[in-house]
Amino acid sequence: MNAMGGYDVEDISVGMQASFSKTVTETDIVLFAGITGDNNPVHIDALAAAESIFKGRIAHGMLSVGFISAVLGTRLPGPGAIYLSQNLKFLAPVRIGDTVKATCEVVAVLPQRRRVTLKTLCQVGEQVVIEGEAVMMVSSQAR
Amino acid sequence: MNAMGGYDVEDISVGMQASFSKTVTETDIVLFAGITGDNNPVHIDALAAAESIFKGRIAHGMLSVGFISAVLGTRLPGPGAIYLSQNLKFLAPVRIGDTVKATCEVVAVLPQRRRVTLKTLCQVGEQVVIEGEAVMMVSSQAR
Amino acid sequence: MNAMGGYDVEDISVGMQASFSKTVTETDIVLFAGITGDNNPVHIDALAAAESIFKGRIAHGMLSVGFISAVLGTRLPGPGAIYLSQNLKFLAPVRIGDTVKATCEVVAVLPQRRRVTLKTLCQVGEQVVIEGEAVMMVSSQAR
Amino acid sequence: MNAMGGYDVEDISVGMQASFSKTVTETDIVLFAGITGDNNPVHIDALAAAESIFKGRIAHGMLSVGFISAVLGTRLPGPGAIYLSQNLKFLAPVRIGDTVKATCEVVAVLPQRRRVTLKTLCQVGEQVVIEGEAVMMVSSQAR
Repeated sequence: MNAMGGYDVEDISVGMQASFSKTVTETDIVLFAGITGDNNPVHIDALAAAESIFKGRIAHGMLSVGFISAVLGTRLPGPGAIYLSQNLKFLAPVRIGDTVKATCEVVAVLPQRRRVTLKTLCQVGEQVVIEGEAVMMVSSQAR
Repeated sequence: MNAMGGYDVEDISVGMQASFSKTVTETDIVLFAGITGDNNPVHIDALAAAESIFKGRIAHGMLSVGFISAVLGTRLPGPGAIYLSQNLKFLAPVRIGDTVKATCEVVAVLPQRRRVTLKTLCQVGEQVVIEGEAVMMVSSQAR
Repeated sequence: MNAMGGYDVEDISVGMQASFSKTVTETDIVLFAGITGDNNPVHIDALAAAESIFKGRIAHGMLSVGFISAVLGTRLPGPGAIYLSQNLKFLAPVRIGDTVKATCEVVAVLPQRRRVTLKTLCQVGEQVVIEGEAVMMVSSQAR
Repeated sequence: MNAMGGYDVEDISVGMQASFSKTVTETDIVLFAGITGDNNPVHIDALAAAESIFKGRIAHGMLSVGFISAVLGTRLPGPGAIYLSQNLKFLAPVRIGDTVKATCEVVAVLPQRRRVTLKTLCQVGEQVVIEGEAVMMVSSQAR
């Protein structure tokens, strides 16, 4: 464990996983739109959203991706890890009131390069809404 | 242009681009941490961040990715487009006070499948801090 | 009354009371979790909260204590008073939509030491949800 | 460990501790004032605060107590624990830019009553700004 409380590469093995769950509220969407400038009507205009293919307001995909970032940055690998890359597929919308569970699972560890690859998933109940893969650079006891 | 004001696939051609710029504030970071649960010390603990490799607090990478989402969802292709996928590489940190410019440029259009691929970039001045590629499904005049 | 509009110790007598009421909203809980980092699932995860002893999301206890602080800091004794101590017992949960009434009543005054002790109560309807006691140091006309 | 990821009483022993650190920002104070109604000038009026004994704006004491709640509700004992009581002494003010470290340490465990008592501390650097004691009811493997 490093000085910030995150895992060193020596602590990490394939199959380890961690998750974070949050119910998405209207407040989250309002604030996410406010700080990012993503005022897409499908997020902030209930009338336009009702006319859209989604039949109502949906959350920003990147809000749920933020829950993945919460797992990576606070739990696994946790503080001290550096985010190198993230691939994302958006498979289904998230609506107000949905509880999103973000789960990250280690699928590869390269100790010498201090690289960890994690499968990253967001689910609403059994449905996978986002899937992807993250690569993190982590601390090492050797340094 | 579709009913929500976004581009139809017939309006889009390779080379079109749009951007959105915002100065990242401490408030943005506090709110992003709040709504996502990403309380990584490198974002919310100035002392721990000063001891980290970054030598001070940095913004959540996904906050800047939110600016990419803002371009895609409000400008190009704009409202009515559906986010299918996004690849991201994080190349450099963003700090409080930095002005991030997110730019999206069309690199491929598949009219029959209504798919548009865009190169997505975040820059602070000349420095590229995030690069990647997004795929969107867009509306068509044929429907 | 002092320069900030609060009571001097000479103005205060046993039995004086003041209150503040607010309906607790989902927004309050989202923001309180955000600024404090208290992402306990019982506050932010509707599914986990439904499985808990509380059978649904509840507000952070310290949010309601904030309403006590609002009475003490803005009404009785009001601005200029210094918060020395607070004891709290949490007796029942507060849920989204509940209207919390915080009441503070003076139970002791020590003029020479400029100390005022207040009984502090939060109620939802007739039910006491929090009870406790605060000690404040207040201004004096003698200074 | 219980279903929500918190410690059962059988997992807890005297001397265990956990902490959470956050740099207090102007944004935190603005939002805390907004959601609690505690508009004491010493928090939101820079001019009046400059004339006060504190010589400038200070954070709400209960904001820092919220960091204690974050430790208790997310780390030790963690999710599933029920907050029964909290005693607090406010020893020094917290200002914008101060990094507050909240630490909770188990000082007593009553397994049969599922009660855990923790010493609760907030520090800015070496200075203790808040001290107190919390009592929690925790889950048990026996139930």
